[in-house]
Amino acid sequence: MTFFRSRWVSPPDGVEELDAAALAPGFRAAGAACGLKAGGKTDVGLVVCDHEQVSSALMLTRNAAAAAPIRVCRERCDRGSIRAAVVNSGNANAATGEQGYRDAVAMQETAASAIGVEASAVAVAETGVIGVPLRIDDVLSGIAEAGAALSHLGAENFARSIMTTDLSEKRCALRLDGVTLSAQAKGAGMIEPGFATMLCFIQTDAVVEQPTSALAGAVSASFERITVDGQMSTNDTVLLQASRQSGKPLPEGLLEAVCLQLALEIVADGEGASRVGRILVSGAHDDEEADLVSRAIARSPLVKTAVHGRDPNWGRIAQAAGMALAGQELAEIGAEQIDARELAGEGVEVELSLRLGRGEGHALTYFSDLTKRYIEINADYTT
Amino acid sequence: MTFFRSRWVSPPDGVEELDAAALAPGFRAAGAACGLKAGGKTDVGLVVCDHEQVSSALMLTRNAAAAAPIRVCRERCDRGSIRAAVVNSGNANAATGEQGYRDAVAMQETAASAIGVEASAVAVAETGVIGVPLRIDDVLSGIAEAGAALSHLGAENFARSIMTTDLSEKRCALRLDGVTLSAQAKGAGMIEPGFATMLCFIQTDAVVEQPTSALAGAVSASFERITVDGQMSTNDTVLLQASRQSGKPLPEGLLEAVCLQLALEIVADGEGASRVGRILVSGAHDDEEADLVSRAIARSPLVKTAVHGRDPNWGRIAQAAGMALAGQELAEIGAEQIDARELAGEGVEVELSLRLGRGEGHALTYFSDLTKRYIEINADYTT
Repeated sequence: MTFFRSRWVSPPDGVEELDAAALAPGFRAAGAACGLKAGGKTDVGLVVCDHEQVSSALMLTRNAAAAAPIRVCRERCDRGSIRAAVVNSGNANAATGEQGYRDAVAMQETAASAIGVEASAVAVAETGVIGVPLRIDDVLSGIAEAGAALSHLGAENFARSIMTTDLSEKRCALRLDGVTLSAQAKGAGMIEPGFATMLCFIQTDAVVEQPTSALAGAVSASFERITVDGQMSTNDTVLLQASRQSGKPLPEGLLEAVCLQLALEIVADGEGASRVGRILVSGAHDDEEADLVSRAIARSPLVKTAVHGRDPNWGRIAQAAGMALAGQELAEIGAEQIDARELAGEGVEVELSLRLGRGEGHALTYFSDLTKRYIEINADYTT
Repeated sequence: MTFFRSRWVSPPDGVEELDAAALAPGFRAAGAACGLKAGGKTDVGLVVCDHEQVSSALMLTRNAAAAAPIRVCRERCDRGSIRAAVVNSGNANAATGEQGYRDAVAMQETAASAIGVEASAVAVAETGVIGVPLRIDDVLSGIAEAGAALSHLGAENFARSIMTTDLSEKRCALRLDGVTLSAQAKGAGMIEPGFATMLCFIQTDAVVEQPTSALAGAVSASFERITVDGQMSTNDTVLLQASRQSGKPLPEGLLEAVCLQLALEIVADGEGASRVGRILVSGAHDDEEADLVSRAIARSPLVKTAVHGRDPNWGRIAQAAGMALAGQELAEIGAEQIDARELAGEGVEVELSLRLGRGEGHALTYFSDLTKRYIEINADYTT
């Protein structure tokens, strides 16, 4: 098993791994290069369900400066019956005004024509630089090319079509109890727990009767629990499509395990990241307070650099917790309340905990460390 | 004039600069080396008002994990009549439990004896690593040494005694309208707008009838408007002492200009900083909303790295604003609403603005950029 590699993920027993290029039965995908990314890299993609009776769920960023494709999904998609998604990387089509909106609509309509479905059955997702007009003619040519290349083994090319600063592909194809599930995700920067926090596409031939609640449950324990740089994106999108072809329900725990492993892959591939931290806060008044404290610790650049430097500087955990609870009375936080032994250890996965001793609330957040490579990547991104 | 060097500070007309080692008349200070910092650097200090009728104001961090000296100041000081401050750098005496509290009390009492005042007239301030027991015997020896070295020209040594990762001393001695004002500040990391956000000591021979409101007003427009790394410290302290010896009031605007220039010095000397940004947000529903948005932009590591890289990536300003207003409806933010021309320019001070077009609210925040040097400093701080 190469996909479920984090000690923090417990996949259901008996999961088999399929060819990683495979999609769940009833789905095809493809990628093409249209020149948005340099060097002829794949930057336009399509994923399509061949069956009309698809059920789907679509989660979108809550960022108030949402990108054009997010607004198109909100206003022009039937979220419960998404047949296909059209994607590009290299340009987020965000802060691009009315022209950006028209461009995202053109992507939706061109993809719908290429596949032979209603435009409202096509979701649009884009990722890349913000504030730059989309070269729409190139993108539309790329969509036509991808439409002609759709394949049951297209997951690899599709996964590449959504990558930006990602160093690793994040995808899986799994089989359990007569059901297949495939998924592709991207994300490395502008990652923070929000409604949904990157691009992720999940296909299954299972029967999923309540796709929205199934997806929301899995996302709340995975993508909403991670942070790379504390920045909620303008373009976050998670799409679950279920073709129902297997006639069987989704095995319990599979979607949750896949989302958590993909979320951890995003953190591990966070821009410049060398280690992944997990901070568990317990003993808070309630879970909300624990959530607030665990996120403050996970976001702290001082904690992140200590994780990177294997610096046993656990006082920074106390400081960040105190900041999150500013203005309140807090019992002394000291060495007895903080377990940071793994900070200075050799492991790539670093488990940290803080006990507040105020009640029963608890929460955990996964986060990347902060390295010089993050600065290199982000100080010179557009130019 | 070498002190007021930022284009964003407007000092009152006619300010004269005095010998930077000088303190306001009626004050003496000193520093000593007790071994908390490596290499024999000055790490213990005292500043003393020689006049009993001093009036003072003391602002302390709101961090819920406040350090021992903060708790001692809250519980054992007469904030309106502070004669002296005893300080050390190299150890914050935070997250050090009851022993830490006893150590801070010992510092207060030893300083009071050395100077010949009541313990409640001595403020304690410490800065440095969190969670490490204070070597109190060394500190008490250092206090005795500093007590024997008090001088009217001791501002330089005192300023050094509060430095940690600071590269530059932040201090001034100014004269205007028959009044002298001297000040010393430190701060480079763990800097975020809060109640007070670093260590700063201000002495004047003016008559200040309402020192608390005078200081709060000056701090709200200076130290509370800056961020380096978004981290509210466990130890932030600002002390204003007025000896009244000149018989004259504080000239209008002087305290405000000094606090703003010192705040900008802290940002400019932010850990690893190479440039200082100022983001003005206008057109918000109200000033609170503008404050929220301007701080989100100033904290964003993506904006900070763009400032560092002279990368004209203004889309990151739109993204951070949208994150701050997550869940709300926001009119499209595009190139017309954002002025980021100075991002790619040569200047060290970078002026940015965002017009939201929702109302009359406005706010500005000063911030440092984010560089590889920040990572170097913080990935290897304790070890």
